[in-house]
Amino acid sequence: MTVLDDKGVSPLMTHAPTADTPDLSAVRPDVDALLTAFLDRKAHLTPGPELAPLFTVLSRLLVSGKRLRPQLCVAGWHAAGGHGDQSTVLHVAAALELFQAFALIHDDVMDGSDLRRGEPTAHRALAAAYTAGGGRRGRAEAHGQSAAILLGDLTLVWSDDLLHSAGLDDGALRRVLPLVDTMRSELVYGQYLDLRSSDRLSDDVEAALRVVRYKTAKYTVEWPLRLGAVLAGAAPDVLDACSAFAVPLGEAFQLRDDLLGVFGDPAETGKPVGDDIREGKATVLMALAVRAASAADQQLLGTLVGSPDLTGGDLHRVRAVLERTGARQHVEEMISARRGTALAALDQAPFPAAAAAALRAIAQIATVRQA
Amino acid sequence: MTVLDDKGVSPLMTHAPTADTPDLSAVRPDVDALLTAFLDRKAHLTPGPELAPLFTVLSRLLVSGKRLRPQLCVAGWHAAGGHGDQSTVLHVAAALELFQAFALIHDDVMDGSDLRRGEPTAHRALAAAYTAGGGRRGRAEAHGQSAAILLGDLTLVWSDDLLHSAGLDDGALRRVLPLVDTMRSELVYGQYLDLRSSDRLSDDVEAALRVVRYKTAKYTVEWPLRLGAVLAGAAPDVLDACSAFAVPLGEAFQLRDDLLGVFGDPAETGKPVGDDIREGKATVLMALAVRAASAADQQLLGTLVGSPDLTGGDLHRVRAVLERTGARQHVEEMISARRGTALAALDQAPFPAAAAAALRAIAQIATVRQA
Repeated sequence: MTVLDDKGVSPLMTHAPTADTPDLSAVRPDVDALLTAFLDRKAHLTPGPELAPLFTVLSRLLVSGKRLRPQLCVAGWHAAGGHGDQSTVLHVAAALELFQAFALIHDDVMDGSDLRRGEPTAHRALAAAYTAGGGRRGRAEAHGQSAAILLGDLTLVWSDDLLHSAGLDDGALRRVLPLVDTMRSELVYGQYLDLRSSDRLSDDVEAALRVVRYKTAKYTVEWPLRLGAVLAGAAPDVLDACSAFAVPLGEAFQLRDDLLGVFGDPAETGKPVGDDIREGKATVLMALAVRAASAADQQLLGTLVGSPDLTGGDLHRVRAVLERTGARQHVEEMISARRGTALAALDQAPFPAAAAAALRAIAQIATVRQA
Repeated sequence: MTVLDDKGVSPLMTHAPTADTPDLSAVRPDVDALLTAFLDRKAHLTPGPELAPLFTVLSRLLVSGKRLRPQLCVAGWHAAGGHGDQSTVLHVAAALELFQAFALIHDDVMDGSDLRRGEPTAHRALAAAYTAGGGRRGRAEAHGQSAAILLGDLTLVWSDDLLHSAGLDDGALRRVLPLVDTMRSELVYGQYLDLRSSDRLSDDVEAALRVVRYKTAKYTVEWPLRLGAVLAGAAPDVLDACSAFAVPLGEAFQLRDDLLGVFGDPAETGKPVGDDIREGKATVLMALAVRAASAADQQLLGTLVGSPDLTGGDLHRVRAVLERTGARQHVEEMISARRGTALAALDQAPFPAAAAAALRAIAQIATVRQA
């Protein structure tokens, strides 16, 4: 499964800051401050100290993350001519980050993952807190899983709460709510399509691309960008330009992530290499390999992909198939083509030059990164 | 855990219809029609036929249920003087029912329950659909669980979607959103408190009552009633009267449910008797028994409560302790006291007489029922 995490994405604008480019590097600390203040308010309103583990675990998860979606949201706001007081758009951006935290918490439960960004996942941390608080050791795992389902639910509900208290005027609220509703449905659709296609080896490149489109292109890039633009009262042509840029960029972003998951350096990506292979994730990369593989290579993939106890040697053999079928190269070309389409869309977009420059920097970081 | 299900609550107004009492019996078919139309709209917008199992499972879950929360919502609207076109309040009531479906789906995953209202739970049904669709049998259980987590998420998101398209004017939307946010947080708080207290035998009556307050009194009764009242533009004294009636009634409702769970007739309640004992649920009933039990009885409870393979004989022994400690009788008295408080609040409430009569009927059904 795995919702795309943005841990590896560098803070923006550290590479190419110019005087007239919106300074998106401030988004992260600003969003952090809003999230901290929000959780503090909630902590004061809870019915008892027994809820403390929920706060501890969520706070720690929120500390990390590079705020890709918030940055895209603020960039979209600039792209639609937003200027002046950023308080509202930053609140909305922070709500997006809470929504992403919800998605990660449930994703980790579904995948049974132990670590997220080098720390115990929510369900593991909540299981540990339960045992530390005197709970029966034999029930800790089940408790952790249930508690994490509840924490995910709470985080989803809180993302709404933060959105509703963002200071939106009536018109903006009316524009934003349906967009957020669509974004959230589409993420779940993408997750479910992904869940269904995992565990069966497939040569269906289109099906794999559809998952990419829903889970990453739309959820991670298109909707945050459009959300910011809508807040600034974007005209239809601006919204169209947002999508024309965002969807190919988002696809390229996920395709790069898929390559890094198999060929990346764990020291740079921060996650174990080969997990997608172990989980049998139906990536575009794998579908292309299956499609082009010889009978012998198909059999090799059939044996190894989705095998939880994959060895280093197995991974090496799978990689060799991905190379010799041309699948790796093909995905590199797909990334290039999509980056090109996104940048061309940006050249045509009716965005202020500074906003376009910021989005160009995002496109670069998202598609050529090593981590 | 278990969110209170209203399967056993009879449709209202079949007992005491009078000419000037709002006819709440129409709420159920009206809400059913709105939910069906909503799911049909969503089905037309989905990205592919692979999503069909989500719709099938959710539709079946939504068919049952007696619409207690929707009826309370409409009753609250009448109580605050609402009259004329009910379209908006019915949409909001339907959104409440979707939210309840979300709560049940996740609850069943957390409890690992096989049946809900006599049918396979969402995670069991989704596991079966996966196997039927060619998924690997060995992964069906994990798939069903993940798919049900996602279906719950989707149902929660959709409850918002339906609320946002309910036709609320700006003022009503501003009043309703914070109330819904609070309701949803409080349910999760209650669920988490319940989760933490399960599996340890406790004499803490206050802690058990707090869970009752959050999970049932507020979530199931107070918030639906206030939501309807707020929609009709209720003044503060009307809202106060809603709470003064709802909280004791909701507590009585849950206390009755706890008694039925141990002493009820499965043929009438529609659920196996003794599940609360098997799960080690920290009910008020059990806390009272632990508090008053002899050393020998405490030991007996310690051995049997929370034992998944409880026999009929074990259950009989636990029941005997609940009787001889006076816990059962004590809970009956708590129910009576709370029903009395609720009805007295109703006598003082500034509600139209017809609305008060409808609420009086609800109070009767909810507290003296056999199922």
